[in-house]
Amino acid sequence: MLAALLNGKPTTATQPTNLFGDGLFETIAIRQGQPCLWTYHLQRLQQGCRRLGYPAPEPDQLLAEAQQLAHPHTQAVLKIVLSIPPVPRGYQRPAEALPNRYLSCLPWPQQPLYQAVDIPIHLQTCQTRLGCQPLLAGIKHLNRLEQILARRELQPPADEGVMCDQQGSVIEGIMSNLLLLDAAGYVTPPVEACGIAGVVRQLMLDMAAQQGIPVRVATQSLAELRQAQAVYVMNSLLGVRPVASLDGLAYASVRLPHFLRQVHQACFELASPV
Amino acid sequence: MLAALLNGKPTTATQPTNLFGDGLFETIAIRQGQPCLWTYHLQRLQQGCRRLGYPAPEPDQLLAEAQQLAHPHTQAVLKIVLSIPPVPRGYQRPAEALPNRYLSCLPWPQQPLYQAVDIPIHLQTCQTRLGCQPLLAGIKHLNRLEQILARRELQPPADEGVMCDQQGSVIEGIMSNLLLLDAAGYVTPPVEACGIAGVVRQLMLDMAAQQGIPVRVATQSLAELRQAQAVYVMNSLLGVRPVASLDGLAYASVRLPHFLRQVHQACFELASPV
Repeated sequence: MLAALLNGKPTTATQPTNLFGDGLFETIAIRQGQPCLWTYHLQRLQQGCRRLGYPAPEPDQLLAEAQQLAHPHTQAVLKIVLSIPPVPRGYQRPAEALPNRYLSCLPWPQQPLYQAVDIPIHLQTCQTRLGCQPLLAGIKHLNRLEQILARRELQPPADEGVMCDQQGSVIEGIMSNLLLLDAAGYVTPPVEACGIAGVVRQLMLDMAAQQGIPVRVATQSLAELRQAQAVYVMNSLLGVRPVASLDGLAYASVRLPHFLRQVHQACFELASPV
Repeated sequence: MLAALLNGKPTTATQPTNLFGDGLFETIAIRQGQPCLWTYHLQRLQQGCRRLGYPAPEPDQLLAEAQQLAHPHTQAVLKIVLSIPPVPRGYQRPAEALPNRYLSCLPWPQQPLYQAVDIPIHLQTCQTRLGCQPLLAGIKHLNRLEQILARRELQPPADEGVMCDQQGSVIEGIMSNLLLLDAAGYVTPPVEACGIAGVVRQLMLDMAAQQGIPVRVATQSLAELRQAQAVYVMNSLLGVRPVASLDGLAYASVRLPHFLRQVHQACFELASPV
């Protein structure tokens, strides 16, 4: 950890969290001293606060704190955690409980995947499936056992895992959203019943709408995923990346089309202030 | 907190937890200096370790630690938490990560419900539904946002909430399991797709089998719950309690039959060593 703020005050402590994952988080790329895709991250955090019944963070204050941490760094990671303080026992949130606001700045990941943008991703199908829970779908909450169990399944050379819902429909990656290109065009699975509404996924949908590029939102079978012309993964630290293989089976096209190169660039150019 | 042990050593710190609820817990009644229903709690904890990929705790060591904390107390609560140490970022559990073993002793709850055994329970139907996730069902893991959201719904005089699955079938209480008595006998909902396999529920099933008392395991509709002759809630701190009302509608019978009085007594008599 490079630096951290707890409710606005510098701290060297790790984040104070409650036992039951009663919280939200955002993982944000820092480029040239600014948090990237700030508006998208803020909107998802606000949506999460509504769902979990937290007061929304004050946007100007949150941005000021994010910029304070981001300012010294050309390239780093900003993590925001809103979480209810620890409770001794039981599921009852104390009436007066307000989430702690913990922002920390971490070094940019060392793995090659995060160092070079032209490294394609190897996918592996995970046995761990996502539970259907519309109350928690979309938001980036802190109940992440499904992702932790799925992550344990990955074997080299897989960089990322494909997660399905209980019916076996493809929903997302463990740490990313998925975009497929098939004969009918682009398609990305819905995240209303399970999965996370990724900021890059939303940016991609917004840019596609602006440019008149149709993107369907629909679950895909594993067979459809395998038979896609191309597959891409998206998240705030990777941007948009082409997928080289799924379970060892190579995809024909492993390059970003012009539109997705634009989205990728926008991931790291759309720094705040916005 | 009265006392705590972290990996066997006395500590005054709160439990060190990871951000994503990667852990397990048990809440155990202490009576006359001994943890109650020890074998049941240990078995569920071991089952949880298998599901989450943790090494199982050494049973003799865990019991010795539990007894060390329980010994001074006539009546108290023992909480066991196994949880992966904090990770800076991402869903990958470090290869060498072993769960911390945190045992703490807390005062017995002050609420009247926990002071007098003859106070019946008032139930309220919760809008918050349980997601279907067989990989995590049954075990007492630390991803508990569903329970926290459901708990926020409770309005006086409700002591406990009824939680349904995504199809609207009754599964359990927020902090307890449910047992219904209808014209055909006892019935308790299954906990294979969602819900927690409570230790008192298992004790009740075992005692029923020993005594030749049939107990069906089947989901119930809210209508069936309303129309039951009697409803009971079960957990390790309450034992077995009759339900007085559901959403303000009173049940005809609000007393424990002989069999359930036996189960209730066994909850606080079956202290270790076992």
